[in-house]
Amino acid sequence: MPTFLDTAAPDFDARFSALLGQKREEAEDVDHAVAAIIADVRSRGDAAVIELTARFDRLTLTAETLAFSPAEIAAEIAKVTPEDRAALELAADRIRAYHLRQMPEDASWQEPTGATLGWRWTPVSAAGLYVPGGLASYPSSVLMNAIPAKVAGVKRLAVACPTPGGVVNPLVLLAAELAGVDVIYRIGGAQAIAALAYGTATIPAVDKITGPGNAYVAAAKRRVFGRVGIDMIAGPSEILVISDGSADPDWLALDLLSQAEHDQSAQSILITPDAAHARAVTAAVEKRLETLERREIAGASWRDFGAVIVTRDLHEAAALSNRVAPEHLELCVEDPEALSLEITHAGAIFLGAWTPEAIGDYVGGPNHVLPTARSARFSSGLSVMEFLKRTTLAKMTPEALRAIGPAAERLAISESLEAHGLSVRARLDRLNG
Amino acid sequence: MPTFLDTAAPDFDARFSALLGQKREEAEDVDHAVAAIIADVRSRGDAAVIELTARFDRLTLTAETLAFSPAEIAAEIAKVTPEDRAALELAADRIRAYHLRQMPEDASWQEPTGATLGWRWTPVSAAGLYVPGGLASYPSSVLMNAIPAKVAGVKRLAVACPTPGGVVNPLVLLAAELAGVDVIYRIGGAQAIAALAYGTATIPAVDKITGPGNAYVAAAKRRVFGRVGIDMIAGPSEILVISDGSADPDWLALDLLSQAEHDQSAQSILITPDAAHARAVTAAVEKRLETLERREIAGASWRDFGAVIVTRDLHEAAALSNRVAPEHLELCVEDPEALSLEITHAGAIFLGAWTPEAIGDYVGGPNHVLPTARSARFSSGLSVMEFLKRTTLAKMTPEALRAIGPAAERLAISESLEAHGLSVRARLDRLNG
Repeated sequence: MPTFLDTAAPDFDARFSALLGQKREEAEDVDHAVAAIIADVRSRGDAAVIELTARFDRLTLTAETLAFSPAEIAAEIAKVTPEDRAALELAADRIRAYHLRQMPEDASWQEPTGATLGWRWTPVSAAGLYVPGGLASYPSSVLMNAIPAKVAGVKRLAVACPTPGGVVNPLVLLAAELAGVDVIYRIGGAQAIAALAYGTATIPAVDKITGPGNAYVAAAKRRVFGRVGIDMIAGPSEILVISDGSADPDWLALDLLSQAEHDQSAQSILITPDAAHARAVTAAVEKRLETLERREIAGASWRDFGAVIVTRDLHEAAALSNRVAPEHLELCVEDPEALSLEITHAGAIFLGAWTPEAIGDYVGGPNHVLPTARSARFSSGLSVMEFLKRTTLAKMTPEALRAIGPAAERLAISESLEAHGLSVRARLDRLNG
Repeated sequence: MPTFLDTAAPDFDARFSALLGQKREEAEDVDHAVAAIIADVRSRGDAAVIELTARFDRLTLTAETLAFSPAEIAAEIAKVTPEDRAALELAADRIRAYHLRQMPEDASWQEPTGATLGWRWTPVSAAGLYVPGGLASYPSSVLMNAIPAKVAGVKRLAVACPTPGGVVNPLVLLAAELAGVDVIYRIGGAQAIAALAYGTATIPAVDKITGPGNAYVAAAKRRVFGRVGIDMIAGPSEILVISDGSADPDWLALDLLSQAEHDQSAQSILITPDAAHARAVTAAVEKRLETLERREIAGASWRDFGAVIVTRDLHEAAALSNRVAPEHLELCVEDPEALSLEITHAGAIFLGAWTPEAIGDYVGGPNHVLPTARSARFSSGLSVMEFLKRTTLAKMTPEALRAIGPAAERLAISESLEAHGLSVRARLDRLNG
């Protein structure tokens, strides 16, 4: 049974806080094993990567076959049906168009002092994208990670995707091609992260690594952070649906289940002021769970972490949503724009009942890599910004230095940093001398 | 002796790579102690913070005196000289003006399909700023961290600043006041980070923690990352000066020493095509080191990590600088704008010999919290962006869903995520039925 809460109940605050504090994932402690793998790849390079791939993925590679050849990629891609290709192309085009709009502007301006200030954005030179193998090998994730990198201007974009037993998902290779990926290595796990971060004879090091992965991949990303940049460490997915009762209960049930079917640690929450509607959606979830292919996973998620909350009104619903800071938020209400103005923390908002969250997973345009586990309080989804960095610019003239240099000198002295002060003073003396 | 390199020498590449790979800082392993402190603060709250402050800072506090009172702050600030106050105000005004320009724009647009897409920026609700105590208690760092937070719109900004033996730097309190800080706690170390991240009865939890600190603070920030957002973990500072030989060697010597005097792990590098100029700057450094107050620190830094590199031309100098990806880059050349276009990785660029790096530390306007240890390859200095997060927005109409929904359904099926596909299909069926 999911959790049922009513904000009018006397114990609501305690029970809602318990819901917020619920731990949905036991972090597997693989750090020791990962440290050893990284050390091995750093010291033995390709040989270590090849050995570990043989051990973990039952796949025999050589330095020459670490990467897919163009012919291999073409052969796999040829297996894709025209319908799947068209869908992936539509998604790629829309994701690209959305992310192009995110490109930030450079700036430069001159002050009355004569000083010129500004900044300039430049892309990361080389990035690596981790793509899980097996069941969680999602072509949509390839698009969502690779397209922002290429839009940002990353010159060399490498994909690492394990192919256990040599099996690869042709749609993953097509997604990489559509996104403009430069090279695809058939390696995975901590050894792939280590190879991308430190480089080997065959695999050049990158500057930034993004993409989802299992506990080993996550631990390896944490360990190489600093050596390279990484994206967030994603946790299990969440959806929160605020409904005023006007939408079809079955639609909302499917939206809640579309998170729940990802992972039994996923969380689906319905908040509505309409108690009868809450019961109708709950019944629709149970009904759909009878036949859903992934009913075991989705059912466990809904039973263990699902929640239905009845509120006094929609304002209270928005306030509770802000405390959750959900990854995905659907506003299935008559005036979603108005309610959205009350939302202060959410990874992505889907406005109105005609916008199922699944649209955002594939073809909406915005990124589907979003902050989980309440981190929308302080972080954003993946964007071109993760593949850009800003260099600040400052140029003084003699007059500008005369105007603001003495204040710098004084502050340097107050911080006992004499050379800082002298570097300004030597120039001011030239002006005065 | 600093390292002397010449790009024309046959062993240059190997020696430059060794310089890049040089380890300047031994990370002290305090993780075990920090984990215990965090656990203690999580379980015992204020009591733990008060005990740890008595032990580490020799200061007896109560829940009531954890924060400075307004009267205490006013009494300390009254000690600041008018000249120091004026300098700090000038710095605060300029930093605020620069960071106001960084505020990103919201976006919303309608597509031909009828779909509306966009994003909206919102501030982090509450942030904590760590300010080291003792010698490294820099009022300029308070401005550089606190002003971007307040410009971004952070409602509650808390400072944690240890006051060993009860001693506080009045300029730090004034800087906090000028920046609009809401509360100042006289606590430090891992216990301060734990209190900010998890909250106590007296100290409300924040969503984001920034600011420099010692090994304990850095380890604690790493540990609470995920629970809250953190800024980068800063390493020792660096400056790289590219000179065409036109600037006064003494100016450049002082600029190099202004990094070196921070920390004996700091690194100062001069790159120039003019070998005679390189010798002149080196001689000027030695001369200044005879009298500099912090000559022991600066001398050790210059001897152990300083480098002077003679190149064939300025293009080669820029290319080498990009391999270093320095935190601070001075372009002391005739046409710094032109050369700056060749720079792909640097935290901040100072254009022309009239722009000593120290201007950027205090009053230039751009932030002085910048990526160290070659991380300018993939990250940027502190800005308002660290205190904002982006929520993506999508709204479908029935017509828009008809246009792009089938592609989403097909991709969902290809990824074996049935409920995703059904959530789209149920709506499409309504349109068609």
